[in-house]
Amino acid sequence: MATLSAPSNHSPNEDAEALRKAFEGWGTDEKTVITILGHRNSNQIQQIRKAYEGIYNEDLIKRLESEIKGDFEKAVYRWILEPAERDAVLANVAIKSGKNYNVIVEISAVLSPEELLNVRRAYVKRYKHSLEEDLAAHTSGHLRQLLVGLVTAFRYVGDEINPKLAQTEAGILHESVKEKKGSHEEAIRILTTRSKTQLIATFNRYRETHGTSITKKLLDEGSDEFQKALYTTIRSFNDHVKYYEKVVRDAIKKVGTDEDALTRVIVSRAQHDLKVISDVYYKRNSVLLEHVVAKETSGDYKKFLLTLLGKEE
Amino acid sequence: MATLSAPSNHSPNEDAEALRKAFEGWGTDEKTVITILGHRNSNQIQQIRKAYEGIYNEDLIKRLESEIKGDFEKAVYRWILEPAERDAVLANVAIKSGKNYNVIVEISAVLSPEELLNVRRAYVKRYKHSLEEDLAAHTSGHLRQLLVGLVTAFRYVGDEINPKLAQTEAGILHESVKEKKGSHEEAIRILTTRSKTQLIATFNRYRETHGTSITKKLLDEGSDEFQKALYTTIRSFNDHVKYYEKVVRDAIKKVGTDEDALTRVIVSRAQHDLKVISDVYYKRNSVLLEHVVAKETSGDYKKFLLTLLGKEE
Repeated sequence: MATLSAPSNHSPNEDAEALRKAFEGWGTDEKTVITILGHRNSNQIQQIRKAYEGIYNEDLIKRLESEIKGDFEKAVYRWILEPAERDAVLANVAIKSGKNYNVIVEISAVLSPEELLNVRRAYVKRYKHSLEEDLAAHTSGHLRQLLVGLVTAFRYVGDEINPKLAQTEAGILHESVKEKKGSHEEAIRILTTRSKTQLIATFNRYRETHGTSITKKLLDEGSDEFQKALYTTIRSFNDHVKYYEKVVRDAIKKVGTDEDALTRVIVSRAQHDLKVISDVYYKRNSVLLEHVVAKETSGDYKKFLLTLLGKEE
Repeated sequence: MATLSAPSNHSPNEDAEALRKAFEGWGTDEKTVITILGHRNSNQIQQIRKAYEGIYNEDLIKRLESEIKGDFEKAVYRWILEPAERDAVLANVAIKSGKNYNVIVEISAVLSPEELLNVRRAYVKRYKHSLEEDLAAHTSGHLRQLLVGLVTAFRYVGDEINPKLAQTEAGILHESVKEKKGSHEEAIRILTTRSKTQLIATFNRYRETHGTSITKKLLDEGSDEFQKALYTTIRSFNDHVKYYEKVVRDAIKKVGTDEDALTRVIVSRAQHDLKVISDVYYKRNSVLLEHVVAKETSGDYKKFLLTLLGKEE
């Protein structure tokens, strides 16, 4: 369930005109920007971008960049890109910064195969390199194998599972992931090629056999980038709602708040299942997500996030 | 340039009726099968399949399988599948037989990124596994890394090249491929992620620096599957026409002829550039491809291949 509330009928032209008016004169009327863009779904926003460009011969995104600033600007920018474009940008930022490969794992594990392809198309179009090309050039060893395998997969989607395979591969994952012996390459093969349904069957089989989930105690002080990526991979395939809840929880717990992570989850999921993530958050933390967000953020950034959360003040 | 000659106007219904008539009565009228199917392009054949199914409530492919036999059947079967379906079948046969990974390399190097995606879609649809899933489960080590990287790539297509990168990466390829030291993983990364234009620039840079092509003397008696696949990869990216000429030459040279390889090249390229391949063949061997094919094959199989070569007797 989404948290975004968007009217089913809106006029792209009127929205474009209202935005233009908000930009004109002394300062920017941020309230209007938030009220409009925070209440339109991604299709509607693409129509507004088109209408704006048509009427004013100006790129709405560029204009916004000159009008607003900081975390608010970043959040709005991410929100108004097409979803595939946004993920391509997020992936590129992650690769260039050389950290937070969570983004790479997320898009691979959460998107459908065709959606993932759209991200790869958007990436090539924008950067004139392929996603896997940039990723492979910035990583090495097992981390590279895992991440490149994840983004390049085109998995089978469907209910057919092979229970015997789940059994065998739960064993392989145990050896590699938990015992840290055996071949990491086989664990990587499994995680980068099997269908999501098959993987979940394998994780379940693991729990039945070992009485504990595969991710339990997987991370410790000495974990390297590869092990962290492995952990994120398993978690996000297994239950991406719980996974996102943890991303938000960690982002908020951090001293100073990790705005990038918070923005990413809210902006990426507002139109999809942010309501569910928010419910899981409440269940886990006994505090409403919108209250924490209101407490930890401020200004227009706060107002925008709360609007996407369906809880504007 | 294609060798296939197909009329621009044809009636799918009339073709379907003529085929049905060819199947009826004593034996099959192979001549009609060849005349029709050997003179239709893949779009037209898909229309005939549809018309046939509509009129007779019978799958044309299944009917053909019961009517004709041997190499002729195999060639017709491969010819009348949609190109993406055909490549998916060829890849699956190669994976299951555990040899001839050339097919895997070919589709990765010769098809456009979107065509390659179509093969992967067709594969998942048909086998309920992904292409990379089956491939990875049947291979290991560097061979797996190379082949899986090849089929899963979605490369940048365009003219932009980076000459400095070509220089550096020619060096990396030299170390890994020719000196057999350094990291194979880096050679694999380059070959599986860079754009075709960039790769060709790298191969050219290699030739300028070392005075010889990178594939020269790459293969020797002791070459393993990985080195063979590496060789095929470089050759088919560098110049797929020359590469196909060699596949045909080797297929014919083989004692007893390698019908699978011969069929594969003719069927895959008849509608594209078989004329060019055939010209290069003549230049290299001073004998016409159609003469060799006529000499080395027989019966309806021969007639069908010659028809696709545009040289029916």
